[in-house]
Amino acid sequence: MRGFGMTSVGNAAWLDKEKPVAGPYDAIIRPTVVAPCTSDVHALHGGAGEKFDRILGHEAIGEVVEVGELVTRFKPGDIVVVPCTTPDWMAPGVQEQVSNAHDWGLMKSFKFLSSKDGVFAEFFHVNDADANLALLPEGVAPEEALMIVDMMTTGFSAVENGRVGFGDTVVVIGIGPVGLMAVAGAKLSGAGRIIVVGTRPNCVKIAKEYGATDVISYKDGDIVEQILRLVPGGVNTTIIAGGNQNTFPQAIAMTKEGGVISNVNFFDIKDTLSMPAYLWGLGMSNKDIRCGFAPGGTVRMEKLLNVIKYKRVDTSKLITHRFHGFDQIEDAFKLMEEKPKDLIKPVVFIDWNDK
Amino acid sequence: MRGFGMTSVGNAAWLDKEKPVAGPYDAIIRPTVVAPCTSDVHALHGGAGEKFDRILGHEAIGEVVEVGELVTRFKPGDIVVVPCTTPDWMAPGVQEQVSNAHDWGLMKSFKFLSSKDGVFAEFFHVNDADANLALLPEGVAPEEALMIVDMMTTGFSAVENGRVGFGDTVVVIGIGPVGLMAVAGAKLSGAGRIIVVGTRPNCVKIAKEYGATDVISYKDGDIVEQILRLVPGGVNTTIIAGGNQNTFPQAIAMTKEGGVISNVNFFDIKDTLSMPAYLWGLGMSNKDIRCGFAPGGTVRMEKLLNVIKYKRVDTSKLITHRFHGFDQIEDAFKLMEEKPKDLIKPVVFIDWNDK
Amino acid sequence: MRGFGMTSVGNAAWLDKEKPVAGPYDAIIRPTVVAPCTSDVHALHGGAGEKFDRILGHEAIGEVVEVGELVTRFKPGDIVVVPCTTPDWMAPGVQEQVSNAHDWGLMKSFKFLSSKDGVFAEFFHVNDADANLALLPEGVAPEEALMIVDMMTTGFSAVENGRVGFGDTVVVIGIGPVGLMAVAGAKLSGAGRIIVVGTRPNCVKIAKEYGATDVISYKDGDIVEQILRLVPGGVNTTIIAGGNQNTFPQAIAMTKEGGVISNVNFFDIKDTLSMPAYLWGLGMSNKDIRCGFAPGGTVRMEKLLNVIKYKRVDTSKLITHRFHGFDQIEDAFKLMEEKPKDLIKPVVFIDWNDK
Amino acid sequence: MRGFGMTSVGNAAWLDKEKPVAGPYDAIIRPTVVAPCTSDVHALHGGAGEKFDRILGHEAIGEVVEVGELVTRFKPGDIVVVPCTTPDWMAPGVQEQVSNAHDWGLMKSFKFLSSKDGVFAEFFHVNDADANLALLPEGVAPEEALMIVDMMTTGFSAVENGRVGFGDTVVVIGIGPVGLMAVAGAKLSGAGRIIVVGTRPNCVKIAKEYGATDVISYKDGDIVEQILRLVPGGVNTTIIAGGNQNTFPQAIAMTKEGGVISNVNFFDIKDTLSMPAYLWGLGMSNKDIRCGFAPGGTVRMEKLLNVIKYKRVDTSKLITHRFHGFDQIEDAFKLMEEKPKDLIKPVVFIDWNDK
Repeated sequence: MRGFGMTSVGNAAWLDKEKPVAGPYDAIIRPTVVAPCTSDVHALHGGAGEKFDRILGHEAIGEVVEVGELVTRFKPGDIVVVPCTTPDWMAPGVQEQVSNAHDWGLMKSFKFLSSKDGVFAEFFHVNDADANLALLPEGVAPEEALMIVDMMTTGFSAVENGRVGFGDTVVVIGIGPVGLMAVAGAKLSGAGRIIVVGTRPNCVKIAKEYGATDVISYKDGDIVEQILRLVPGGVNTTIIAGGNQNTFPQAIAMTKEGGVISNVNFFDIKDTLSMPAYLWGLGMSNKDIRCGFAPGGTVRMEKLLNVIKYKRVDTSKLITHRFHGFDQIEDAFKLMEEKPKDLIKPVVFIDWNDK
Repeated sequence: MRGFGMTSVGNAAWLDKEKPVAGPYDAIIRPTVVAPCTSDVHALHGGAGEKFDRILGHEAIGEVVEVGELVTRFKPGDIVVVPCTTPDWMAPGVQEQVSNAHDWGLMKSFKFLSSKDGVFAEFFHVNDADANLALLPEGVAPEEALMIVDMMTTGFSAVENGRVGFGDTVVVIGIGPVGLMAVAGAKLSGAGRIIVVGTRPNCVKIAKEYGATDVISYKDGDIVEQILRLVPGGVNTTIIAGGNQNTFPQAIAMTKEGGVISNVNFFDIKDTLSMPAYLWGLGMSNKDIRCGFAPGGTVRMEKLLNVIKYKRVDTSKLITHRFHGFDQIEDAFKLMEEKPKDLIKPVVFIDWNDK
Repeated sequence: MRGFGMTSVGNAAWLDKEKPVAGPYDAIIRPTVVAPCTSDVHALHGGAGEKFDRILGHEAIGEVVEVGELVTRFKPGDIVVVPCTTPDWMAPGVQEQVSNAHDWGLMKSFKFLSSKDGVFAEFFHVNDADANLALLPEGVAPEEALMIVDMMTTGFSAVENGRVGFGDTVVVIGIGPVGLMAVAGAKLSGAGRIIVVGTRPNCVKIAKEYGATDVISYKDGDIVEQILRLVPGGVNTTIIAGGNQNTFPQAIAMTKEGGVISNVNFFDIKDTLSMPAYLWGLGMSNKDIRCGFAPGGTVRMEKLLNVIKYKRVDTSKLITHRFHGFDQIEDAFKLMEEKPKDLIKPVVFIDWNDK
Repeated sequence: MRGFGMTSVGNAAWLDKEKPVAGPYDAIIRPTVVAPCTSDVHALHGGAGEKFDRILGHEAIGEVVEVGELVTRFKPGDIVVVPCTTPDWMAPGVQEQVSNAHDWGLMKSFKFLSSKDGVFAEFFHVNDADANLALLPEGVAPEEALMIVDMMTTGFSAVENGRVGFGDTVVVIGIGPVGLMAVAGAKLSGAGRIIVVGTRPNCVKIAKEYGATDVISYKDGDIVEQILRLVPGGVNTTIIAGGNQNTFPQAIAMTKEGGVISNVNFFDIKDTLSMPAYLWGLGMSNKDIRCGFAPGGTVRMEKLLNVIKYKRVDTSKLITHRFHGFDQIEDAFKLMEEKPKDLIKPVVFIDWNDK
């Protein structure tokens, strides 16, 4: 079968690989809508370490074409939502009740492109189908559902880790698609004032539609000063969904005592996160610093699908570019690499009858 | 000074009483907008025990006319929001970190009408002003703010106790003003499906505007059966904001394992709350049964004011009847007693310059 | 193979059944130490519904004799600790992060004797071996480890649900083996005063060794009055680990505002749990009423084994009677049925080489 | 009145100051047992900023000699336990339900030596007496109680922030008095394995008595390597109760995904806390980094007194040196400055009748 991926770091290519095989609890899926993600681009350029002949992609809606003999909840023909993290539910990490993202260790629940081929393929493999897949519900468009598998589950986890409650004041630094979902999630957690840090006009527009009340730009000077001017004493929760290693001490500086700094930004392996001790009250401030990775699993997906189904968030706002046809995955991916100013998320619709 | 209240159980009257005196941490307030509440009606009819010559009322926005010598955050002329519970912050109950409603014991933070005169007076007394009052912010109408001091803080606490999260399915039984606030709060906590149980047309209309997705009526048969038909297996959270002692086992029956039954309904002292053990999984179901009373205090008020200020909820929808003038408190109160079908909350605007 | 169980309700017998077969994720275990439990006795007498030709028993340490082809962490010859609840980790219930006891519904994780044969057999079957079994660690005697699979995991869950913290005052009603584990768990959660309600002399003695500071007896009058005399205003947490339907309102009466009533008592299907509304502050008291069922899974077992290994609790105190030989399971079971005064837990050691 | 303190940074001295005056909610206390703390030494040497003519000391048991007119729970003659942080309960910070240490801002609840004279005086002042003091209970020696006002409340808060549960593996870095209390608190929270990092023989001895199962020394090589050798994959909770800025990344490195790093070490104002991003899983590890400051208030003190009263921890083990007489405060303080190897905590008993 064909798939779009990398022959080695830096070399994108269409690959020919064996069709994956389902173990007793697994499913084989044919993608019907997929989206490239900046993590795919990072992986191509070495951000996930050396990889050879690996198909990329980890955001997909698809049709079940085959299930293992012990799968009970799904059958061929089902249209399913596939979380980007698909924990191995036999692993100890899912029993710790913190996040299911670390089944056998750090981020090990993230299997696509990391430990096996991804979803930019004619067929892809999902482990523990009964516990990881969710049926696409009636009334939810597949491309809307696609936005939950990584963007919403990640952005919303930042809000959960940030312990946002009624009337809290929240900052979201970075308003790419994950940051925008954090804005929507903060509003959906009762936040009062939501201050976003970002500049791209269409992102700013959507941030406001999702609930942002104030917009701050790096271009207008130090963001800490700007925010402390708006909220003397600091905010309850600061969500880091963008930026670089210098964003880390800024987030601590703008958060008040007893507040939370909640990170979902992927730092670079060469980054060092540093904070002057006084920003943390010399270690006495009760400012929590938390981070997390996309929670997966069936129940999470079903709950997030309810968020869409019951019109709590319109995820279609995130979709700025639409492609049609399996081969266009390459164009969508290149667009993600180039990151034009107006890009938030491109999606690719695949009609297998067309081929 | 004059105030509207009761000479004894069953006897409503205008009373003449001494103007209250401020201790060093207290404030004296002149009400500018007040609202009667069903608790005031209950109190008149004996629901709060024997009372003599007691001024009623516990929902007020007002103007500070006097502060004690140790008050630092407020001064005469300030327009303030007064929570219906005003904890004594020297009491142990506020240190338990569960609710501040029980300062020296059960509901002891509820002082108006319970242990002192209420707010339907020319002047009323607030203990621990710095820790209990909040300034009315710019951009928030006083009558909108009035809806937070009991209705929203109570309804939202039901949602907090109910541990509502993203995509959860929630039932709200009873859609009077507290139930309606619970609906709005459930939506603001990320709930997906929100099923309400109620019949009054204007309440049903507002419930839908606040986020209800399904409406169930007692008139169409057993509510447990209706809800389990919609959500086989039961819902994540059931909020009891109305009904009677028979509502209690129904709420347990419609909640799934691991879910929460969250009560803010005021049961009658003669009620017995009974559940057949099998509804609770013989005591093994991990269904939590929680209840609570209106949290007060400055920080709570400030956060709820942010909910209004940043347009997360439009509380003005709750206000169905508007009165003007101090003397009209009596009419507003009688309306509350009669409870016409279209009543949700009456408010009384008082312009002291008019007098 | 042979096993001790019931031919039908009321009829205990040795049964001949097929040796169980391991699916790809399963294991077949030969028991080496087992213990009867009052739930086994209840099951015999119909407490778990009609059952035919069912082997009883759900507390076992054993030797792995066979594993499915996808099991990676265990191999024949391993000595393993088997939780009494063995969740199906593909089920949605384990993803709700409340308890893993309800995999596909109420108590469905409890499979022994409920939906398949139990452990009083030459061989028994464990689903999802990698996620449910734990290796017996060095330095822990098997009979000590046996006490965790139901008694400790249940008793400790009562303490966790009871949110016991440093210096809290806790009541434990009922000091059978689960109640005794709740006492030990309360001490291990920082409780200050621990009041137990019970009468059997050896249980009282062990309760004190486990941390009880006060002992109350039903024989000395109303237990609510006795406890409120010791702790005016009520206690932080009341754990129900015994008693009957009348214990329920008593537990509520002795708990203070903001406290927790935490139940692990198995009520009868005919019981009705009733509380006068005033005991619950008319629904305003912030007294949480919680219940739960034995959490299982590998991680839970490993953590509880650490409690023994590092000498935090000596579970051998619970073992009052020791039997030797597979056939003695019948005697041990009958002892459990008779419940002599000095009985806490009987255990049966099985040496298969002896046979 | 006389008091021992500093005329300016670096200059310790006996000072003559006015006797403090009680406001309506305050109390004036005569100390009967006091202890110097390393924070007092730091303050003398400029660690708390420039101070002039400031009496030092913040750990005291004493006798109430005067109370304000609104104090209801205490009267002259009462022997009371005084938390080192005495929040202003009118302040917003105590309403945030995180810690009461930050009443009006960062560490503002810490008033002794920071914003007013400390307890090394003939008399000292306590704000909000009803909400901050606790009666010394019968059966608790004053010097044992003295160990809770800073050492235990701080060390235990590290355990609480560290979310230690049954069977968890915990590291405590630094086994001075706060670290030792963290060890005792970890055991009292159900920890299984408790690994301490420290070298001083008497501290090591007490750490073991308090529950430490393993002892690691900086002298035997890299502590991260040593700990990961004992616990491959890392521990559940790492408590930082000593060390320097380099300890911070070490703590992160030795904690597993989903774990907590809980700091109570006072870092220097010139320190920078730095972690290579990969130690934090590039911001995806779900490792929480938390910190806190000594919680105060009556309820906290009463609960910790219960821990002693009911023999859960023997705090007298911390006391290595005993002095008698008010004037010996100077000797005790100098001992704290010199920090001989065998010093944990010195206490000074003061008998005012002796003078």
